[in-house]
Amino acid sequence: MGELKADTAGTIGDFSGHLFAGSFCFIFGLSESTKCILKYLCKKQKKTYYSKTLFYKLEILEGILIFILALTGICGSLLFTGGSHLPLYEGNHWNKLKDWHHSTVYLFIGLVGVANILCFTVSSLPVSLTKLMMSNAFFVEAFIFYNHTYGRVMVDMFMHNLVGLVSFVTGLVAFIELLTENNILLELLRSNLILLQGSWFFQIAYVLFPPEGKTTWDLMDHDTKMFLSMCFCWYCVLAYIIIGVNYAFVAWLMKLRMRRLCSSEVGLLQSNEYEQELEEEI
Amino acid sequence: MGELKADTAGTIGDFSGHLFAGSFCFIFGLSESTKCILKYLCKKQKKTYYSKTLFYKLEILEGILIFILALTGICGSLLFTGGSHLPLYEGNHWNKLKDWHHSTVYLFIGLVGVANILCFTVSSLPVSLTKLMMSNAFFVEAFIFYNHTYGRVMVDMFMHNLVGLVSFVTGLVAFIELLTENNILLELLRSNLILLQGSWFFQIAYVLFPPEGKTTWDLMDHDTKMFLSMCFCWYCVLAYIIIGVNYAFVAWLMKLRMRRLCSSEVGLLQSNEYEQELEEEI
Amino acid sequence: MGELKADTAGTIGDFSGHLFAGSFCFIFGLSESTKCILKYLCKKQKKTYYSKTLFYKLEILEGILIFILALTGICGSLLFTGGSHLPLYEGNHWNKLKDWHHSTVYLFIGLVGVANILCFTVSSLPVSLTKLMMSNAFFVEAFIFYNHTYGRVMVDMFMHNLVGLVSFVTGLVAFIELLTENNILLELLRSNLILLQGSWFFQIAYVLFPPEGKTTWDLMDHDTKMFLSMCFCWYCVLAYIIIGVNYAFVAWLMKLRMRRLCSSEVGLLQSNEYEQELEEEI
Amino acid sequence: MGELKADTAGTIGDFSGHLFAGSFCFIFGLSESTKCILKYLCKKQKKTYYSKTLFYKLEILEGILIFILALTGICGSLLFTGGSHLPLYEGNHWNKLKDWHHSTVYLFIGLVGVANILCFTVSSLPVSLTKLMMSNAFFVEAFIFYNHTYGRVMVDMFMHNLVGLVSFVTGLVAFIELLTENNILLELLRSNLILLQGSWFFQIAYVLFPPEGKTTWDLMDHDTKMFLSMCFCWYCVLAYIIIGVNYAFVAWLMKLRMRRLCSSEVGLLQSNEYEQELEEEI
Repeated sequence: MGELKADTAGTIGDFSGHLFAGSFCFIFGLSESTKCILKYLCKKQKKTYYSKTLFYKLEILEGILIFILALTGICGSLLFTGGSHLPLYEGNHWNKLKDWHHSTVYLFIGLVGVANILCFTVSSLPVSLTKLMMSNAFFVEAFIFYNHTYGRVMVDMFMHNLVGLVSFVTGLVAFIELLTENNILLELLRSNLILLQGSWFFQIAYVLFPPEGKTTWDLMDHDTKMFLSMCFCWYCVLAYIIIGVNYAFVAWLMKLRMRRLCSSEVGLLQSNEYEQELEEEI
Repeated sequence: MGELKADTAGTIGDFSGHLFAGSFCFIFGLSESTKCILKYLCKKQKKTYYSKTLFYKLEILEGILIFILALTGICGSLLFTGGSHLPLYEGNHWNKLKDWHHSTVYLFIGLVGVANILCFTVSSLPVSLTKLMMSNAFFVEAFIFYNHTYGRVMVDMFMHNLVGLVSFVTGLVAFIELLTENNILLELLRSNLILLQGSWFFQIAYVLFPPEGKTTWDLMDHDTKMFLSMCFCWYCVLAYIIIGVNYAFVAWLMKLRMRRLCSSEVGLLQSNEYEQELEEEI
Repeated sequence: MGELKADTAGTIGDFSGHLFAGSFCFIFGLSESTKCILKYLCKKQKKTYYSKTLFYKLEILEGILIFILALTGICGSLLFTGGSHLPLYEGNHWNKLKDWHHSTVYLFIGLVGVANILCFTVSSLPVSLTKLMMSNAFFVEAFIFYNHTYGRVMVDMFMHNLVGLVSFVTGLVAFIELLTENNILLELLRSNLILLQGSWFFQIAYVLFPPEGKTTWDLMDHDTKMFLSMCFCWYCVLAYIIIGVNYAFVAWLMKLRMRRLCSSEVGLLQSNEYEQELEEEI
Repeated sequence: MGELKADTAGTIGDFSGHLFAGSFCFIFGLSESTKCILKYLCKKQKKTYYSKTLFYKLEILEGILIFILALTGICGSLLFTGGSHLPLYEGNHWNKLKDWHHSTVYLFIGLVGVANILCFTVSSLPVSLTKLMMSNAFFVEAFIFYNHTYGRVMVDMFMHNLVGLVSFVTGLVAFIELLTENNILLELLRSNLILLQGSWFFQIAYVLFPPEGKTTWDLMDHDTKMFLSMCFCWYCVLAYIIIGVNYAFVAWLMKLRMRRLCSSEVGLLQSNEYEQELEEEI
């Protein structure tokens, strides 16, 4: 087992790779939660300064951001990791399958970005396509992670399975969002799950691939698994707290800006027909 | 196996701990069922004496009650059980992981209480947040119980897995409540499942940790498992009967009080705008 | 294994017991499908002769029928089977646990009957309570069957697990019916599944407990399992055909009776308020 | 294991059989996606040339096509494969069970065709019956495939299980379509999954039953499984691209034809009552 891990050292599966994945989830989760809190609070004070063109721009920006991060993830997995060769099949064995797995996950996340950009620029596409792609991306991640952990140490498997579990649930929530009306709680729940996944990637990085080299955790002990399952729940509380603070912050910011914005953004409200159309589609 | 159980004696996992958990579920289930029966019957006779401010106060009271009970549960699990030390990691092994598991479950139930209090005091929060937190609490309980029973005796595992199953289903029902309109049957179903869980905790207390010391049940026999699975269904019927009696009692009480209340509570109906707003949010 | 089966000979688990269960499902499925086809076709020609009091009476009748059949099932399981003693725990081992399992299933089906009777006589109860109890009954059946087949022969387990599967799906469909509006396809699907379960009980009776004594099927052969899984699907087609014929028959009968009924049942349509109330509740 | 495969050589389980299944799925998926894209784009420009009689004819045509293909599949499985004998039970063992499994799947797909034809010719049937039968067909396929792979090589099992998985998800999506309003994304998702299944059948044909005789893939290697799981996801992307291209193509074709059709198809719009009725049923 020790050799098995030595073999993966220096790839995306290691410390920096999981740190990147964790940061990605954190950025994604925070941006999603901020967006939906903003939308919710804006709708509550509909009259004064709710402008959909602003949200269109935000969505496109988010799409570009996701796309770039996903591209970085793919390149990072396949190219820049220490001593990795690009060819998938070499000699008579598969090469760096785990990195290709990671790239596949990033590919689907990249598609979310592409869908975000397309849906808010091409008007004939249904807006909820973004939810479909997001749901799809997380289901694919769950599927990949399910086929990812063969032959690993118990705690390693457990931690990666939890990523799969949280991905699956996130995909499910995104799919339910596709079916229901705009529901702020589902969007917050999804943000929560993405943040949870992010913090769990950090935990994986520090438990399985610590920067100082050899892990101090007993990866064969069932008690470690019991502790980590509990730890996972605590991160869930942490994610709720982050979202709660974000909610309070956005609400406070809006109150502060309310007076100033009232006058300056009225111009945006003239594009009424466009918005009406969007609302129906959503 | 005998040593394993001797080891857990005197902790929250024992008789009094399960009795507390069972009582908690019973109080919770009864309060939830009473609340939703009251709401349903009140709505049926909308004109005369349905006051939402009353339900607001009830919700906040229930929130405080849940919070206090959950706090008691956390403290009971970690501090007051015989000979338990607080530190989670001691020497080079995990300490009292099971008690920390129990505390985590109580922590999430405490969050339900907090959500109840917040939602009905801060007006900008969506009311169904309470359902989300409840759903979350029960899913977390199911998750914790799934990772809770490693290495135990068959019947012990089975009984705890049933708690996990009923928690999962309760979480699912609460989640569906979040998505659908006010549906009295779903609320009653949830109350039923919570009562079922409560009675099952009592059953666990008496089967696995009997007050007289050593259990008389054969924990390795498959027939015991078959009997208990059937027993579980009977408790489900019992929970239906309790709810049915509660329904009849509340309906009878309402008829009795109807005449008196008609005149005295009209004053509360003047806060119409507030209620209208709530109704939309729900 | 041979001894295990010899032990159960002469109980409800044998030929006649499964035949009774199969007949029960057949009667239930046919009555449900007829009822919902009738309701659907009546609604299509709303003006002339749709009377809800008729359906009320039908529901109550069905409730009584189900209740009596379930009672018969309970008594049959516990009392009249050859040489069975009533006490559940005797000496120091469990007695006739399988029969008690069967009784528990019948108990929950009896509750469906009770709910049917109560909902259509007591006006303050929500009508969809019947769906909840039906969903509950089938989920409980699935749960019981899941814990019912320990230590049996492969094909025996497989056949009983299929009953569990079909019960679970039936419960799911009934639960979805609870959540959605009146949807004829879901009701027909449920009838189909109940008929499927009925025909499967017949198949079990003839494969595992043939009247001539010893089964001629190879219960340890994986090919038997493969054949039976296919056979199960064929019964599903059969159930569709039965429902299709029933549909055509009911439609033909309605056309025939249309002229006669037009005049004679107008009287029933005067109870408009009652019906309006029902429609809202449904 | 080698003998096991030698045994199935020359049956529908071989290269040509899987190629047929793959082509079937491709034709089905393309036709479904084209139909729903057309419907969606037509609805967006409702006024000018949306004619439901056209879609009725398309549905019936598709029904006939599916029925003929399914019939071909049944006959191909049972009759024309090399050296297969028709009788299911011969001597004292089951004969060609796998082919009968395939036929059962085709039987249910044939029922989808029949339902399509019936629903759009007999007006008293609910239109969404087609969705129910489609959902049913895919669930049955998933069930059959689950019981189909006993005793096969790991990668063989894995590949067939993936067909089962994708069938199950397709069935689920079709079932959700039954419950929700017309939702273009769900229909496209279903088309996507059907195309995915089609391409996966091609992959199976080339991996397990290559035309040149003996497979060059290591069917016992876990790495092959890891690669194929990733490969499966890539086909999903491919299916999205096919649907995207189809979408763009149909949209372009409609723009092109718009001017010409405007005048010639107005006549079809006169059958308003018929359409109104359909819309309600859907």
